[in-house]
Amino acid sequence: MQPRNQNTPKEQETVTLSLISTGLADERDLSLRALEEAKQCDVLYAELYTMKLATTLAALNELTEKSVTLLHRGDLEERSNNLIEEAKTKIVGVLVGGDCLSATTHISLILEAKAAGVKTRIVHGSSIFSAIAETGLSIYKFGKTVTMPFPEKGPVDTVSRGIDENLVAGLHTLVLLDLDNEKGAYMSVTQAIKRLTEAGINPDTLMLGVARLGHADSLIKAGKMLDVAQVDFGEAPHCLVVPGPLHFLEEDALKTIAHCPPEALKGRQLKSELDRLIEKYIAGCHRVREKMVTTPPTSPLTEAQIHELLDHVDHYLADAEYYKSDNKPTALTSVAYSEGILDALKLLGIADFEW
Amino acid sequence: MQPRNQNTPKEQETVTLSLISTGLADERDLSLRALEEAKQCDVLYAELYTMKLATTLAALNELTEKSVTLLHRGDLEERSNNLIEEAKTKIVGVLVGGDCLSATTHISLILEAKAAGVKTRIVHGSSIFSAIAETGLSIYKFGKTVTMPFPEKGPVDTVSRGIDENLVAGLHTLVLLDLDNEKGAYMSVTQAIKRLTEAGINPDTLMLGVARLGHADSLIKAGKMLDVAQVDFGEAPHCLVVPGPLHFLEEDALKTIAHCPPEALKGRQLKSELDRLIEKYIAGCHRVREKMVTTPPTSPLTEAQIHELLDHVDHYLADAEYYKSDNKPTALTSVAYSEGILDALKLLGIADFEW
Repeated sequence: MQPRNQNTPKEQETVTLSLISTGLADERDLSLRALEEAKQCDVLYAELYTMKLATTLAALNELTEKSVTLLHRGDLEERSNNLIEEAKTKIVGVLVGGDCLSATTHISLILEAKAAGVKTRIVHGSSIFSAIAETGLSIYKFGKTVTMPFPEKGPVDTVSRGIDENLVAGLHTLVLLDLDNEKGAYMSVTQAIKRLTEAGINPDTLMLGVARLGHADSLIKAGKMLDVAQVDFGEAPHCLVVPGPLHFLEEDALKTIAHCPPEALKGRQLKSELDRLIEKYIAGCHRVREKMVTTPPTSPLTEAQIHELLDHVDHYLADAEYYKSDNKPTALTSVAYSEGILDALKLLGIADFEW
Repeated sequence: MQPRNQNTPKEQETVTLSLISTGLADERDLSLRALEEAKQCDVLYAELYTMKLATTLAALNELTEKSVTLLHRGDLEERSNNLIEEAKTKIVGVLVGGDCLSATTHISLILEAKAAGVKTRIVHGSSIFSAIAETGLSIYKFGKTVTMPFPEKGPVDTVSRGIDENLVAGLHTLVLLDLDNEKGAYMSVTQAIKRLTEAGINPDTLMLGVARLGHADSLIKAGKMLDVAQVDFGEAPHCLVVPGPLHFLEEDALKTIAHCPPEALKGRQLKSELDRLIEKYIAGCHRVREKMVTTPPTSPLTEAQIHELLDHVDHYLADAEYYKSDNKPTALTSVAYSEGILDALKLLGIADFEW
């Protein structure tokens, strides 16, 4: 009779990698399910670099009754394979701030584990992505979320474009602010607004500064951008919200919850790039139509004049091609302008073609 | 010496209304903070009608060591004043499924309490709004959220329009499904897709059916809409996700996590109205430029020809005004086309003006 071999197939069976959310603020935001899961892990890690939590390794150790090992960025990125290998023989838990799958790096870890045949478990937790409803803005009406990078890490235009695109779509924007936990650097509301000002955002824009949501001393303050920048929001983490069009209940909430001065809600300019172009061009055309003087020519148009005009068309068509993926309003303007010139030639009997 | 009067001012000071999130699935999704808060309330209610939780009043009683009273819709709406009055003398806690401020009715309760001078506290919890990242789709790229109503409760066009607007903006859509907890009626993925089919959504549309997210037996399945409708997702709650453009990591995740057949990811049509117009007009202009024949006129242009062209401009300008609020791409096209004609007249020396 063969001895029972504990190495096969039992040990070749995959064990588990468990991502355990710690929630919004500190270790008391772990759910009962999360704590139970953490306690039954063979080894427990904590990834505390993607957000600022008001907790410590000591607090996590005490709560989970484990010796929690801190992970660094590389442990989850280049060296993620070590975690996966360990999860082939042990139940490996990773504590992650907020709700654990908000960052791409954690989704990648799950995919890597599954590819290696390692079972995965996910325990969800509270997150800024839903807690932001505490501002009184409807969670249903948030559009894409953007992250404002530190000046040395990236340009601000992705942020301003994201805000603009959400406004076009009638949606609110949550702007997360960059941090470098290892250096203890956290972008503040004031710094973020400074970057938006430099990017040319209208200083009257309604914004909310939000600090420490989910903590006992959270602070939410709405107003015109430059007024919000004057507020001392205190300790990190901070974030910003740029509201889209508001329902009256949302306006009430901003006044009551976020102490928004009523004048900041009045006469808001919620125009998109498209709106701005349309209005500008319509006004320009009207002005021209009112003032223009036409002089019927005394001699026939020359071939040179016509070719000059066609070169002009080709130049705008090339612009349309150039802008069509990155700046669609400009691309559409350029091509429609080209059409107008071509049609003018047709209607004057100079060019013959069918669309 | 006056006796210490416990009724004034102490009792006139406001006490607290606390909204306590129970999280995504069952009572074990309460955070440690939420449980602590529930235990220190003088009276504890539970609102279990806005979502389906896998918990019972008995489980909540046992966990919180309180006798929890179930609230009905009217208790939070017409009769919300009773809760506020009670919170003037006692710490009143209300347990709410998911993250507690996702529904408008709970924001209203907070505003009402603040207006009555009652202090409020919020304890956040896990929520479908961030847990949906478990699908592998980036939580940063979700647009507005829509709710699919039961056929007897509302039309489907708000839902299909919401999906389309998010697609135009390059965003994913979370579609929550209607429920009537008191009747035990929960819309299924299959029923929701049937409604979308009736609304004329392309049957090849990529969708994800999601059931019981955060429960041990959750199920996520992606594919073409009609194939997803064939899946038996089991018990409620269900929801749907309609993905926008996908990053390759999101595609990988859909294959691995949501068992998406690769063919469902191919040949997706995700063009916005702007993209479609730009492409169509560029192709048209190129075609015309290649084939057009110009004939320099033998006689000077007449005043009648010029006025005909200006009438044409005025017609398109009126179109731009007409479409500027509802169909912006068409408005921009019309006005830019008008500019082209005006500039043609200028460049030909027929009209004199400055922009």
